Amino acid sequence: MPVFLNSSDADFEAAFAALLTAKREDSPDVDAVVAQIISDVRTRGDQAVLDLTAKFDRLDLTADALAFSAAEIDREISKVSAEDHAALELAATRIRAYHERQLPQDESWTDDAGATLGWRWGPVSAAGLYVPGGLASYPSSVLMNAIPAKVAGVPRLAIVVPTPDGICNPLVLLAARIAGVDEIYRIGGAQAVAALAYGTETIPPVDKITGPGNAFVAAAKRRVFGKVGIDMIAGPSEILVIADKDNDPDWIATDLLSQAEHDESAQSILITDDADFGRAVAASVDTQLETLERRAIAGPSWRDYGAVVTVGSLDEAAALSDRIAPEHLELCVADPVALSQKITHAGAIFLGAWTPEAIGDYIGGPNHVLPTARSARFSSGLSVLDFMKRTTLAQMTPEALKRIGPAAERLAISESLQAHGLSVRARLDRLNEEG
Amino acid sequence: MPVFLNSSDADFEAAFAALLTAKREDSPDVDAVVAQIISDVRTRGDQAVLDLTAKFDRLDLTADALAFSAAEIDREISKVSAEDHAALELAATRIRAYHERQLPQDESWTDDAGATLGWRWGPVSAAGLYVPGGLASYPSSVLMNAIPAKVAGVPRLAIVVPTPDGICNPLVLLAARIAGVDEIYRIGGAQAVAALAYGTETIPPVDKITGPGNAFVAAAKRRVFGKVGIDMIAGPSEILVIADKDNDPDWIATDLLSQAEHDESAQSILITDDADFGRAVAASVDTQLETLERRAIAGPSWRDYGAVVTVGSLDEAAALSDRIAPEHLELCVADPVALSQKITHAGAIFLGAWTPEAIGDYIGGPNHVLPTARSARFSSGLSVLDFMKRTTLAQMTPEALKRIGPAAERLAISESLQAHGLSVRARLDRLNEEG
Repeated sequence: MPVFLNSSDADFEAAFAALLTAKREDSPDVDAVVAQIISDVRTRGDQAVLDLTAKFDRLDLTADALAFSAAEIDREISKVSAEDHAALELAATRIRAYHERQLPQDESWTDDAGATLGWRWGPVSAAGLYVPGGLASYPSSVLMNAIPAKVAGVPRLAIVVPTPDGICNPLVLLAARIAGVDEIYRIGGAQAVAALAYGTETIPPVDKITGPGNAFVAAAKRRVFGKVGIDMIAGPSEILVIADKDNDPDWIATDLLSQAEHDESAQSILITDDADFGRAVAASVDTQLETLERRAIAGPSWRDYGAVVTVGSLDEAAALSDRIAPEHLELCVADPVALSQKITHAGAIFLGAWTPEAIGDYIGGPNHVLPTARSARFSSGLSVLDFMKRTTLAQMTPEALKRIGPAAERLAISESLQAHGLSVRARLDRLNEEG
Repeated sequence: MPVFLNSSDADFEAAFAALLTAKREDSPDVDAVVAQIISDVRTRGDQAVLDLTAKFDRLDLTADALAFSAAEIDREISKVSAEDHAALELAATRIRAYHERQLPQDESWTDDAGATLGWRWGPVSAAGLYVPGGLASYPSSVLMNAIPAKVAGVPRLAIVVPTPDGICNPLVLLAARIAGVDEIYRIGGAQAVAALAYGTETIPPVDKITGPGNAFVAAAKRRVFGKVGIDMIAGPSEILVIADKDNDPDWIATDLLSQAEHDESAQSILITDDADFGRAVAASVDTQLETLERRAIAGPSWRDYGAVVTVGSLDEAAALSDRIAPEHLELCVADPVALSQKITHAGAIFLGAWTPEAIGDYIGGPNHVLPTARSARFSSGLSVLDFMKRTTLAQMTPEALKRIGPAAERLAISESLQAHGLSVRARLDRLNEEG
């Protein structure tokens, strides 16, 4: 049974706080194992990667077979139906169009003091994308990670995707080709992250690693952070739906299930201003669970972490939503735009009942890699900026240095950094000598 | 003796590679101690913070004295000279003007399919800034961290600054007031980071923690990452100067020393296309070191990690610079703008001999919190964006859903996510029924 809460109940605050802090994921402590794997890859390079791939993926490779060849990719892609191919192409086109608008501007200006200031953005030189194998091998995630990198202008983009027992997903390879990925390696786990971060004889190192993975991958990303950049460490997926009674309870129930089916640790919450509507949605969830293909996953998720919260007003719903800071927020209300303006913390907002969250997972255009576990309070979904970095620029004229240099010298002296002050003073003295 | 290299020497590649990988900092393994401190603060709140402050800072406080009062701040600030006050105000004004240009734009558009898409930026609700006490207590760093946060619109900005034996730096308090900081706590170390991340009875938690600190602070920031956002973990400072022979060797020597005086682990490198000029700079460094106030720091830094590299051309210098990916890059050449366009990786570039790096530390306008240890390959200096997060927005019309929904349904099915597909299908069926 999911939790049923009503904000007018006396014990609501305690129950809602418990909902917020419920631990949904036991992260196994794999750090020692991962440290050993990384060290092994750094020491033995290709051979370590090959040995670990034989051990974990039951796949015997040689170094020259680490990467998929173009012919292999062609062969796999030929298995994809024309309809699936067209759907992936449409998704890619829409994701690309959205992310192209994120490209930042370079700036340069000269201020009153005569100083020319600005900044310049550029892509990282190489990025690596982790793609899980097996059940959670999602071509949509390939598009969502690879397209922002290519829009950013990353000249070299490598994918690692494990192929346990040699099995690979042709749609993943097709998504990689559509997105413009340059290299695809059939490796996974901490050894793949280590190979991307430190490089091997066959796999040149990258500067940034993104993409989802299991506990081993997450621990490896944490460990190589600093040597390379990483994106966020994603937790289990979440959806919050705020819906008034003028919705079809079946639609809202399906939306809740579309998150619950991801993972037994996923969390689906409904906030409504009508208790009867809330009960109707919960009843529909139960009915739909009877026949849902992934009921063995969605059922436990809904029973253990699901919640239906009844509130007195939509304003109250917005305030509770900000405490949850949901990854995905659906606003199925009469004026979703107005309600969205009362929301401060959310990864992505889906406005109105015609915008089910699944649209955002695949084809809407915005990224589906989003902050989980309340981290929307301080972080954002994946974007083009994650694959770029900024260099700041400053150029003084002698006149500008005369105007602002003395204050810099004074502050340097106040911080007891004499050479800082002298580096300014030497130039000011020259200007004074020259009159 | 610093290293002298010449790119035409047979062993140059090996020597340059050694320079790149030289380990300049032994990070003591303080993680176990820090884990214990964080756990203590989470369990015992204020009392843990008070006990640890008594232990490490030799300062007995009560909970109601954790924060500086307005009267205390007034009293400390009154000790600052008018000249220092004016210099800080000028710096703040210039830093604010630069960072205001970084404010990102919200976007919203309706595309061909009829989908309205966009995003919205907003500040984090609360940020905490770590300010070191003692020797490395720099008011300029207060401005560089606090002003971007306030430009971002952060409504609550707290500072933690240890005051060992009760000693505090009035300029730090003045910089905090000028920058608009809301709360100042006289605590430091891992206990201060834990208090900001988890909150205590007296100190409400924040969502983002930035600012430099020692090994304990760095380890604490790594540990609370995920619960809150953090900025980068900074390593020892670095400067690379590319200078031709038409420079005053004394100026360049002082610029190199202005980085070396920060820290025995700091690194200063000169690349020049004239070996005689390189020798003249090194000779001037030696001469200036005889009288430099911080020669006990700058001397070891220069001897252990300094380098003078002679190259055949400025193009070669640019290529080597990108391998270093320096935090600070000074281009003291005839056409610094042209040379800067050949540079891909650098935290901040200072263009021309009239722009010593120290200008950027204090008053130029760009941020002085910059990526170290080659991380300019994938990360950027601190900016307004570090204190903001982005929510993506999507709204379908029935017509838009008809056009793009079927592809989403197909991709969901291909990923075996049935409920995702059903959430789209239910709506498409309704539209079909309605004709």
